[in-house]
Amino acid sequence: MPQDLQPAAGESDAFAGLTAMIFNCSLKPERGASHTESLLRAAAGIMEKNGVTVDHAQMAALNIPPGVYPDMRDHGRDSDGWPALWERVSRADILLVGTPIWLGEESSVCRVLIERLYGMSGELNDRGQSIFYGKTGGAVITGNEDGIKHCAMTILYALQHLGCTIPPQADCGWIGEAGPGPSYGDPTGAGRAGFDNDFTQRNTTIMTWNLMHMARMLRDAGGLPPQGNDRRAWQAGCRFDYENPDYRA
Amino acid sequence: MPQDLQPAAGESDAFAGLTAMIFNCSLKPERGASHTESLLRAAAGIMEKNGVTVDHAQMAALNIPPGVYPDMRDHGRDSDGWPALWERVSRADILLVGTPIWLGEESSVCRVLIERLYGMSGELNDRGQSIFYGKTGGAVITGNEDGIKHCAMTILYALQHLGCTIPPQADCGWIGEAGPGPSYGDPTGAGRAGFDNDFTQRNTTIMTWNLMHMARMLRDAGGLPPQGNDRRAWQAGCRFDYENPDYRA
Amino acid sequence: MPQDLQPAAGESDAFAGLTAMIFNCSLKPERGASHTESLLRAAAGIMEKNGVTVDHAQMAALNIPPGVYPDMRDHGRDSDGWPALWERVSRADILLVGTPIWLGEESSVCRVLIERLYGMSGELNDRGQSIFYGKTGGAVITGNEDGIKHCAMTILYALQHLGCTIPPQADCGWIGEAGPGPSYGDPTGAGRAGFDNDFTQRNTTIMTWNLMHMARMLRDAGGLPPQGNDRRAWQAGCRFDYENPDYRA
Amino acid sequence: MPQDLQPAAGESDAFAGLTAMIFNCSLKPERGASHTESLLRAAAGIMEKNGVTVDHAQMAALNIPPGVYPDMRDHGRDSDGWPALWERVSRADILLVGTPIWLGEESSVCRVLIERLYGMSGELNDRGQSIFYGKTGGAVITGNEDGIKHCAMTILYALQHLGCTIPPQADCGWIGEAGPGPSYGDPTGAGRAGFDNDFTQRNTTIMTWNLMHMARMLRDAGGLPPQGNDRRAWQAGCRFDYENPDYRA
Repeated sequence: MPQDLQPAAGESDAFAGLTAMIFNCSLKPERGASHTESLLRAAAGIMEKNGVTVDHAQMAALNIPPGVYPDMRDHGRDSDGWPALWERVSRADILLVGTPIWLGEESSVCRVLIERLYGMSGELNDRGQSIFYGKTGGAVITGNEDGIKHCAMTILYALQHLGCTIPPQADCGWIGEAGPGPSYGDPTGAGRAGFDNDFTQRNTTIMTWNLMHMARMLRDAGGLPPQGNDRRAWQAGCRFDYENPDYRA
Repeated sequence: MPQDLQPAAGESDAFAGLTAMIFNCSLKPERGASHTESLLRAAAGIMEKNGVTVDHAQMAALNIPPGVYPDMRDHGRDSDGWPALWERVSRADILLVGTPIWLGEESSVCRVLIERLYGMSGELNDRGQSIFYGKTGGAVITGNEDGIKHCAMTILYALQHLGCTIPPQADCGWIGEAGPGPSYGDPTGAGRAGFDNDFTQRNTTIMTWNLMHMARMLRDAGGLPPQGNDRRAWQAGCRFDYENPDYRA
Repeated sequence: MPQDLQPAAGESDAFAGLTAMIFNCSLKPERGASHTESLLRAAAGIMEKNGVTVDHAQMAALNIPPGVYPDMRDHGRDSDGWPALWERVSRADILLVGTPIWLGEESSVCRVLIERLYGMSGELNDRGQSIFYGKTGGAVITGNEDGIKHCAMTILYALQHLGCTIPPQADCGWIGEAGPGPSYGDPTGAGRAGFDNDFTQRNTTIMTWNLMHMARMLRDAGGLPPQGNDRRAWQAGCRFDYENPDYRA
Repeated sequence: MPQDLQPAAGESDAFAGLTAMIFNCSLKPERGASHTESLLRAAAGIMEKNGVTVDHAQMAALNIPPGVYPDMRDHGRDSDGWPALWERVSRADILLVGTPIWLGEESSVCRVLIERLYGMSGELNDRGQSIFYGKTGGAVITGNEDGIKHCAMTILYALQHLGCTIPPQADCGWIGEAGPGPSYGDPTGAGRAGFDNDFTQRNTTIMTWNLMHMARMLRDAGGLPPQGNDRRAWQAGCRFDYENPDYRA
């Protein structure tokens, strides 16, 4: 690598104090067994080298039932791992959702995650904004044949809908040629499937840095200003310059 | 409206100097005839009241053929309205894409827009970033029965993929109850379809303000820092701390 | 109802012997509490009046974990309700999948169903076809704001991918106007939300009859002929007239 | 190829008299230049060997504007190639839609096709069914990186919505590994990209035969029986056993 092209780190503590929550929505409860985790670890590696604190949640291991309420024990479940996880989520500046692809879609475990995040969408911060304001979101997708964009579309849409900011080029992934074949990180003759894919490497790098840049920008700005997005004020009658259009001529 | 709840404008010129490009992807070439335009005008109204310069593009009237090249005259077309529109697009801080819904999807005119934007994705700014970096993107969807989220998903995904930032809650829209019926702004007995919908009004307001807040934040920061997303540096061999993961145990 | 327009039933036992499996993918384990069930019951009612045997599966009550294997007890789970359900599924001529909409998508419970169905896709019938050949599939979607087509797209795609036939107009649903509001069947001033919606009633009727017509047609034909879709023959080297194209001129 | 495994053709004229309309929604107006056409030709080859008459429409060459009306000359256009194409479409038993992938989606040309097909959805046959009843639909997708299922989902959903039957496994396609690279049929060192992909070959074969089997089945049955799907009868008040559900307990 041409050393002189490496941007000077300069502000070595630029990202210190930021926290990233990495959700692995693999169907597998064991961490080591997940292909998606491999690519998530590449992103986590960049973050950790730059001072971001990284927290991992292996969703399938956390006993989190489906539902759209903050605590499903209030809705008939004996136990619910979500409230404990939410403690960790609420502290994070970056939410990075990783999922495998099954029949072209994100995993059911990923949909449980989105339902449970959605279940918190009634919560407001002290500015009257969705509790997710100030957080930055991204998506990591792996499969063996098809569907990175379709899954990323779903995940990024959900995250922005909840109140996260999506920085530029906030998704990455790996799939092989059409049809069954090795998954990301599987041993192949010469190495590991996908490890030498420049596109995957580059997009993972860009996504990770943009998540960090945006998280820092939002932290430094103290989040988004509340004008226009303060739901308590809206509820109380503020309209923030909204007017119905004149009818089309 | 309770006057005392209206946030003090304070910095009256907070958004001065920002420019928004509003794309109406109606199938109709005439501006006044489009239902989507009505809702776009509600968003534009907020922007204009706050000093943002708003430019409208009625896509179906601009003679823009399908294609994924910057100028389709180089690929067999006699004429191409895109290069002239791109001049305007490239100056904008905010890209707001409006589309009607046909059979659950954005219009073909909207897909032409996305193809033509995609045709510019090889362009880099002087930091080696996609030319769309620094821009902020949102989506406005109208129909009479179903599909706001599906269309918004597609549009917002495309915009972030190209390099725009998507602020929180960056889409809005209106549809009626399942089945055919009036479109947004159509006269109904008492008024105009959708005009009294609090959800549509609120989401339009939040989207618009968040586009302005984020556009301003990016302008004030001079865009995103190039570390990690400088494609020229990547091409030259910089890896920005990327390393392949150790293989999963 | 104009009595003379009612098609003569004539062959009163036209659909006798057919079986429909109705999957309710509500997040709720209790049957009566589900809005989606209400609309599924409207479809079931037509089937039962015409001699089809209807079996209901309330997915959230059946202890079916995520996974893509026929029996998750072989993959670390203590119990798995899927093998027992599969017995019932495998006998059905019609698969009708009902789901609520959460954040614009089918429920996580619905994705578990699709994963588990997908887990059976290696099974072949005695003609070498996917085990789903001969089955007919449809989708029923309810929500309060948006997403019928998006969810139906996902479900119908999955069903045809597995080997079901999708007859014309094989989905139906109900949503209200954009924004929160009553769900299908909720009491409103005058009646029940959605109950007087002609579009929902008509599409539910058309879907249900087309599922029955196609199921009968496939049963009477003994399924699809195996020429071209016999995977064992393909595996053994049969190419069924497939040839790579000459390269484009 | 093991000759004895080849199913006896037997009824050599099983598919004689059937017609397939193949739509190539490439952005390119010239036929030979399209990668998608290569794979469409593989499907067409099987059909022609079995007596199906195949008609090709290179959509980008046919001067077909966007719109949702049967003839856009009635809506301000100087010319419209659709009415002439519709003549050909209306005679076809099989509709096979091919599209390239751009930014994860079907082409804008494909969306124009769907809009124009949708523009015919008010037409009924002499049984009161949608004019598309009796037709069978499939999808062929090519790209270089991602999106077969996403595009197929959209196309197959639209076709069934309009009234086509979707037989089992009615889509096929080819994409390469994640990232830019050769498109289907591009020369590579050893041959042509995708030509040796067993998955693509097999799925193309299965799709093509299932389209033929289903088209024949529908032709032999004289289409679907009208009971329950006769929109004129519905309009006149027939309810075909539909009743609103009892409210959930």
